[in-house]
Amino acid sequence: MPRAVVLLSGGLDSYTAAAIAKAEGFALHALTIAYGQRHTREVDAARAVARALVVERHIEIGVDLRAIGGSSLTSDAPVPRDRDIAGAGIPSTYVPARNTVFLALALGWAEVLEARDIFIGVNALDYSGYPDCRPAFIRAFESLAAVATRAGVEGAKFHVHAPLLEMSKADIIRRGLALHLDYGLTHSCYDPDSSGAPCGRCDSCQLRARGFADAGARDPLSSAREA
Amino acid sequence: MPRAVVLLSGGLDSYTAAAIAKAEGFALHALTIAYGQRHTREVDAARAVARALVVERHIEIGVDLRAIGGSSLTSDAPVPRDRDIAGAGIPSTYVPARNTVFLALALGWAEVLEARDIFIGVNALDYSGYPDCRPAFIRAFESLAAVATRAGVEGAKFHVHAPLLEMSKADIIRRGLALHLDYGLTHSCYDPDSSGAPCGRCDSCQLRARGFADAGARDPLSSAREA
Repeated sequence: MPRAVVLLSGGLDSYTAAAIAKAEGFALHALTIAYGQRHTREVDAARAVARALVVERHIEIGVDLRAIGGSSLTSDAPVPRDRDIAGAGIPSTYVPARNTVFLALALGWAEVLEARDIFIGVNALDYSGYPDCRPAFIRAFESLAAVATRAGVEGAKFHVHAPLLEMSKADIIRRGLALHLDYGLTHSCYDPDSSGAPCGRCDSCQLRARGFADAGARDPLSSAREA
Repeated sequence: MPRAVVLLSGGLDSYTAAAIAKAEGFALHALTIAYGQRHTREVDAARAVARALVVERHIEIGVDLRAIGGSSLTSDAPVPRDRDIAGAGIPSTYVPARNTVFLALALGWAEVLEARDIFIGVNALDYSGYPDCRPAFIRAFESLAAVATRAGVEGAKFHVHAPLLEMSKADIIRRGLALHLDYGLTHSCYDPDSSGAPCGRCDSCQLRARGFADAGARDPLSSAREA
């Protein structure tokens, strides 16, 4: 089985992207990056998701992006709530260069593993407007990978798979449910309370709720909350 | 004064590149990345160099690349000594995707600072064969930066300056001495002893010694050792 590095955040999207990689026959090497986000609950979810996916290996790397700041996820600025998520503009939850940092680390590990495939759960439709979730970004990173690594200059082609790129959140959830994923293991909220419970009002909670509603499915996290 | 993010390792090259940025009129924002390298002595040197350069700000970010390994600088594999540094091939001190990770972090901070200029002390001639020290890599990263960031998609152009790219080590040292740099503050050795003293035999020590010899200058670190 060819190896793939899968970026696993603990959210719904990266879980689904990793499950797609597995369904395509890759041996999963999961990489979780603790970047100083408010929601460290996410990292716990990534561990649960990695176990559920029966990955070959799961590593975590800390990179404290709070030193840089510039985002409501990595500073003390408030996370927006009850925002019109269909509205224009890149929200304050954008973390400067986050996916560039993530893919750079995934690329380094891929080179060590002699893997040529990297999976990332970015999504350009329900993407909250983030620039580093767009097709042009993925293609530019592949071009960089070819000249950034020993393997690349020796002729290897790195492929960055973004299987969710053109899917709606409802499509992602439908695909994941067809793959029998347990979304109760995941965590999406940008700003959970101290018990880890989702706020229900940030962009990420709104996108998740709308996705489950549009997919005609029940979010196991909501059920747990109501129980 | 326009701001620039300068990657500062504590080595001779990045010190010189930062001094060139300062001479060009930039307000320096120094970024040091502790990536789990053997030679943490380097990080101490970066602090001394940042003070000498009178930077606006100096931040350090830890990223443990030992989790990935794949290099004699980030694993327990031996650092090569007495190697023919003119020989072909990329040595085991190559750290997979290191400069991609470094530039990604520099890009994130540059975006937060509203800086458009990043300085990196890579060198394609005395480069030990590293792929991510070549002109094609620098240009590919600039292309990525344009689509990876909010500022980029809104029209900003990020410029990655690599002023040492085409210089020999002797040229770099001559330039630095003309700028009155104190190379006694720097650290180059890949594998110093427990007191921090350079080994004199790794590629980095060899390149440094040859550079000072070719420049007709005395390395203050050698003088200190002999004193």
